[in-house]
Amino acid sequence: MIIVMAPNSTEAELENVKNKIKAEGLDYHLSKGAVRTIVGVIGDKKAIGQLEMHHLSGVEKTVRITEKYKLVSREFKPNNTVINVGGVQIGGKKPIVMAGPCAVESMEQLMEAASAVAEAGAQFLRGGAFKPRTSPYDFQGLAAEGLKMLREAADANGLKVVTEVVDQRSIETVAKFADVLQIGARNMQNFQLLKEVGRAGRPVMLKRGLCATIKEWLNAAEYIMSEGCDDVIFCERGIRTYETYTRNTLDLSAVAAIKELSHLPIVVDPSHGTGRRSMVRPMAMAAIAAGADGLIIEVHPHPEVALSDGDQSLTPADFKEVMEDIHRMSRLLRGEE
Amino acid sequence: MIIVMAPNSTEAELENVKNKIKAEGLDYHLSKGAVRTIVGVIGDKKAIGQLEMHHLSGVEKTVRITEKYKLVSREFKPNNTVINVGGVQIGGKKPIVMAGPCAVESMEQLMEAASAVAEAGAQFLRGGAFKPRTSPYDFQGLAAEGLKMLREAADANGLKVVTEVVDQRSIETVAKFADVLQIGARNMQNFQLLKEVGRAGRPVMLKRGLCATIKEWLNAAEYIMSEGCDDVIFCERGIRTYETYTRNTLDLSAVAAIKELSHLPIVVDPSHGTGRRSMVRPMAMAAIAAGADGLIIEVHPHPEVALSDGDQSLTPADFKEVMEDIHRMSRLLRGEE
Amino acid sequence: MIIVMAPNSTEAELENVKNKIKAEGLDYHLSKGAVRTIVGVIGDKKAIGQLEMHHLSGVEKTVRITEKYKLVSREFKPNNTVINVGGVQIGGKKPIVMAGPCAVESMEQLMEAASAVAEAGAQFLRGGAFKPRTSPYDFQGLAAEGLKMLREAADANGLKVVTEVVDQRSIETVAKFADVLQIGARNMQNFQLLKEVGRAGRPVMLKRGLCATIKEWLNAAEYIMSEGCDDVIFCERGIRTYETYTRNTLDLSAVAAIKELSHLPIVVDPSHGTGRRSMVRPMAMAAIAAGADGLIIEVHPHPEVALSDGDQSLTPADFKEVMEDIHRMSRLLRGEE
Amino acid sequence: MIIVMAPNSTEAELENVKNKIKAEGLDYHLSKGAVRTIVGVIGDKKAIGQLEMHHLSGVEKTVRITEKYKLVSREFKPNNTVINVGGVQIGGKKPIVMAGPCAVESMEQLMEAASAVAEAGAQFLRGGAFKPRTSPYDFQGLAAEGLKMLREAADANGLKVVTEVVDQRSIETVAKFADVLQIGARNMQNFQLLKEVGRAGRPVMLKRGLCATIKEWLNAAEYIMSEGCDDVIFCERGIRTYETYTRNTLDLSAVAAIKELSHLPIVVDPSHGTGRRSMVRPMAMAAIAAGADGLIIEVHPHPEVALSDGDQSLTPADFKEVMEDIHRMSRLLRGEE
Repeated sequence: MIIVMAPNSTEAELENVKNKIKAEGLDYHLSKGAVRTIVGVIGDKKAIGQLEMHHLSGVEKTVRITEKYKLVSREFKPNNTVINVGGVQIGGKKPIVMAGPCAVESMEQLMEAASAVAEAGAQFLRGGAFKPRTSPYDFQGLAAEGLKMLREAADANGLKVVTEVVDQRSIETVAKFADVLQIGARNMQNFQLLKEVGRAGRPVMLKRGLCATIKEWLNAAEYIMSEGCDDVIFCERGIRTYETYTRNTLDLSAVAAIKELSHLPIVVDPSHGTGRRSMVRPMAMAAIAAGADGLIIEVHPHPEVALSDGDQSLTPADFKEVMEDIHRMSRLLRGEE
Repeated sequence: MIIVMAPNSTEAELENVKNKIKAEGLDYHLSKGAVRTIVGVIGDKKAIGQLEMHHLSGVEKTVRITEKYKLVSREFKPNNTVINVGGVQIGGKKPIVMAGPCAVESMEQLMEAASAVAEAGAQFLRGGAFKPRTSPYDFQGLAAEGLKMLREAADANGLKVVTEVVDQRSIETVAKFADVLQIGARNMQNFQLLKEVGRAGRPVMLKRGLCATIKEWLNAAEYIMSEGCDDVIFCERGIRTYETYTRNTLDLSAVAAIKELSHLPIVVDPSHGTGRRSMVRPMAMAAIAAGADGLIIEVHPHPEVALSDGDQSLTPADFKEVMEDIHRMSRLLRGEE
Repeated sequence: MIIVMAPNSTEAELENVKNKIKAEGLDYHLSKGAVRTIVGVIGDKKAIGQLEMHHLSGVEKTVRITEKYKLVSREFKPNNTVINVGGVQIGGKKPIVMAGPCAVESMEQLMEAASAVAEAGAQFLRGGAFKPRTSPYDFQGLAAEGLKMLREAADANGLKVVTEVVDQRSIETVAKFADVLQIGARNMQNFQLLKEVGRAGRPVMLKRGLCATIKEWLNAAEYIMSEGCDDVIFCERGIRTYETYTRNTLDLSAVAAIKELSHLPIVVDPSHGTGRRSMVRPMAMAAIAAGADGLIIEVHPHPEVALSDGDQSLTPADFKEVMEDIHRMSRLLRGEE
Repeated sequence: MIIVMAPNSTEAELENVKNKIKAEGLDYHLSKGAVRTIVGVIGDKKAIGQLEMHHLSGVEKTVRITEKYKLVSREFKPNNTVINVGGVQIGGKKPIVMAGPCAVESMEQLMEAASAVAEAGAQFLRGGAFKPRTSPYDFQGLAAEGLKMLREAADANGLKVVTEVVDQRSIETVAKFADVLQIGARNMQNFQLLKEVGRAGRPVMLKRGLCATIKEWLNAAEYIMSEGCDDVIFCERGIRTYETYTRNTLDLSAVAAIKELSHLPIVVDPSHGTGRRSMVRPMAMAAIAAGADGLIIEVHPHPEVALSDGDQSLTPADFKEVMEDIHRMSRLLRGEE
């Protein structure tokens, strides 16, 4: 149950609401906005079912939420969340684009990539400094050194940085250099990491797990939000199915589902989603048409020598063309720019 | 191996080619076009690998095709196939739309649906007269009676008919009333049905099996084409995955894959693909953006009383809105109309 | 709803029950046993829910069945069905084994296989005369010629024949030569074929579809039983998942599930289930331990030259060893022999 | 490539081998056993392919390993690894059983469970002190308090403790109380956790990820072994498929696959694998028949009030019966006891 306090309600009224909840053996989560305070009641479903709060002084209304995720749900917050990252709006009228190499390999590679993606109109530089790889003998990333390069290349080109955090111990370091912290697919249910990243003071982009259901994904976001982070971005990156022609099966219906069930923005990764360079453009177009708030696309100045995921990386020239198509599509759909 | 005969080659030269193939213990498939004859060599891979034919008199060139499917492959025919159904082009510049109820229930229901979808701009009336249902106790369709209704409702509204054939014994009857014969997902590897439908003299729309790979789907189309039918339309209708929020997982990357691997057109079914009315519009938009040649959409005048699939059927009013969006999208992408 | 008539009930009482059902706009299915007649009520769930029949004269009791499948359910028939195939019991104390090559290739191959599997203790000769193949250019089987060979090789070695029927038109021919008719995985929801095979007067072995749920499988068996065939055998042959190390993922929990939900016997196919010769023995052992009533195993006198599925075929010598292990296991579990 | 040094080889010879590897731009992993030192060469596949080392002084032989996982592979170590946990052998002749509640709830619950499973013949007490739950509002476990209870209850009943570690920060604490550290399915590719747990000085039980391939699972184990831990136990706990009748699809062919590809032991979890109490016995039996080295089974003194996974927990009485059957099976298969 969500309890919406009236705009002019007092602290004492809020206190009374909290006590009433506690008295029933339940707990609560507070979300204090500029105008309104919202109280999410947590605990035994049956006890919540019997709770009567709407008649209490200072309560504007109560909303019964049937799903386990509450803060991420559209029932809790009917309007779309727009996340402001240093002036770039995620979830607003214009789709944003995050682009760059799979892994940070060197300053030269990164500068070349950053300059190309900025010129083509991307707002974010992406690139992995810590790479979670299937085998311990694969390239694991440049770590802190890579983070610094990302920041430098981004700043030199007027871009924001989004990069993955793979581990609780490095959250602070990553947060120092990145504008948005990414949780990778393999860590979507690494609940300790979700909790700690939720306290890092940065927006978090949460990739969907390889075989996560939409509901599990929403619950994973709830872990982050329940620690105090309001700025979560979903990222659909393909799910694992029996099909082997594509690396994953990009599930664009997840875009429509997230838009129905949650107020949070969602971006799509057609590079990992297909694993094939030739499919990035059509799937990017389809993602925007389905209602995605943005894209994350792998761009490498020289895909043929990439240390990771070369087969799915666009060249800067390809990327430029894709960006032009995306802008045409976006203008058609939302009339912006 | 595909052997392309020169436009001015003679029957004797063709005969010589055939004899050479037979002499190596191999077999062939002939495809006689208006200008050119094409010979597909079939048989043991190793023997084909050693075949040398390009120097024979009358042979323009030979193409080595590595996949088992040949006639459906883009290697065999580089240009897009455009299928003409009584003046309606499938695979041309303009996406076509097939719409109507899941099952034919009555003349009134069908007339109301046909009139609504025609008015909104659809070119085809869809509807099942024979319904393959999970349980023998579910409504199985009106059979021949339903076919007549389909034809009548379509004719009255200037529409073509696409409907499913579930069984070898009824191919002839269905072909009498329908313009396009549909093979349903559950019959995608009913090879006897594929062969016989390939000889029926009608274009065939081949739905993807519930867990068919893209390669298996291409091979199923090869069964139809190898019996002499050149007009096969693929239909992506969602695949079965672990996700339960949607009825199936609509695999739009299959659109891009089919466009790469084959010259045949492909349409998308966002109704079965999602199983949710609210998702039909975004997925229809995404399908067109991904490059689909058309859509097949369930429309029922009164979804709440539908005998089958009411949850995923649009009302005529919803459908009209979707059609307007699709036309805007299509104009943007292909500049037609 | 299932209505169980009393052993001494009269035809007039039965007539009365039928009329009462018809009067409510419902239909019925009769199952006349030696002692008892059972009436399965079919039709609108709500109408069935309101039906009151237990007080009618001649009615012993009524059973409400919530699932769509009725005749196959254990609620309908609590005791295990034992199918008698010319003296061989399927579903009895002793697990039966069906063995032989994937495809019938020649009389020599088949005789060698039949003699080997009979000697090792198998009761059935398996082998495909009609082969459903992914590509139209793969070996499609010897057809009627192959059926005759199967019968001859089986008779010469005291074996029964189980073989696949792929098409309505050949049911009669196959039924002339085979003791058990097999429906392949790709045809599990070829409902016309299921209905016609249910009227063929032979036991039917129904393989699970590549991505069929257990409930869909039970409903497919219901199609066969609802046409009058009481002798249906389930065959688990692996399902399609993301795992590529094995050809399919053998789902042995399906054995336990079928045993809970149905009275019909189930056999397991570890050859197709794994696609690897080395895994046949451990999975055969596991299947029997899980409670399977039998096995179907590919045995080829010379797997290295097999026209189909050589990688998963056992040699006669391997097969003999597997049979010895199976018998030890079976004696342990059921104390028979 | 794996380089096996001769038992009497010198440090200088080893140094020479290392230098040769470095000179080719490659890296190595050392595994120093009591008798032999083994050098795993890591790096660019092509460069490794051209490496010639067998003629160097002190080298006994070289083994080319095509897969990325090396230390876990049977090529690297042909004989089965037997892990000794305070006198209990995992991977030896006798299958071991780990049993207990899903979550540690109270000292009473745990004592009752421990006493019951010990009496029935289990060697390990299982139970979660840290519970990774889909929703942040579900019961998350008793943490350190739960660990102490586990140790106490195990000691009082002569059992070993296996319990999950969900997070790098608590490895040390868990290692203080547990004999075997469990990595849960959701953390199978939490590579940082794998690395750190590999340095904890305890045997590690690695559950298969919800949609992990067998190769990914082997690579995950390689992460642990490459940090110096030789004692890794695989645990098959079911994979995620489209089937909803069971909670997961228990993949028993994985047992046979692991036995082929690796020297490490494997246990099976029929409780999570099926999610249904009634299926635990048949799947436990099947697992042992397939060659598993042990089982992990949920047992709760009062499943109907369990805070987690009550539906799949056995009562102590059920468990006792299952243990008797397992012992009969195990005696049959391996002749031990």
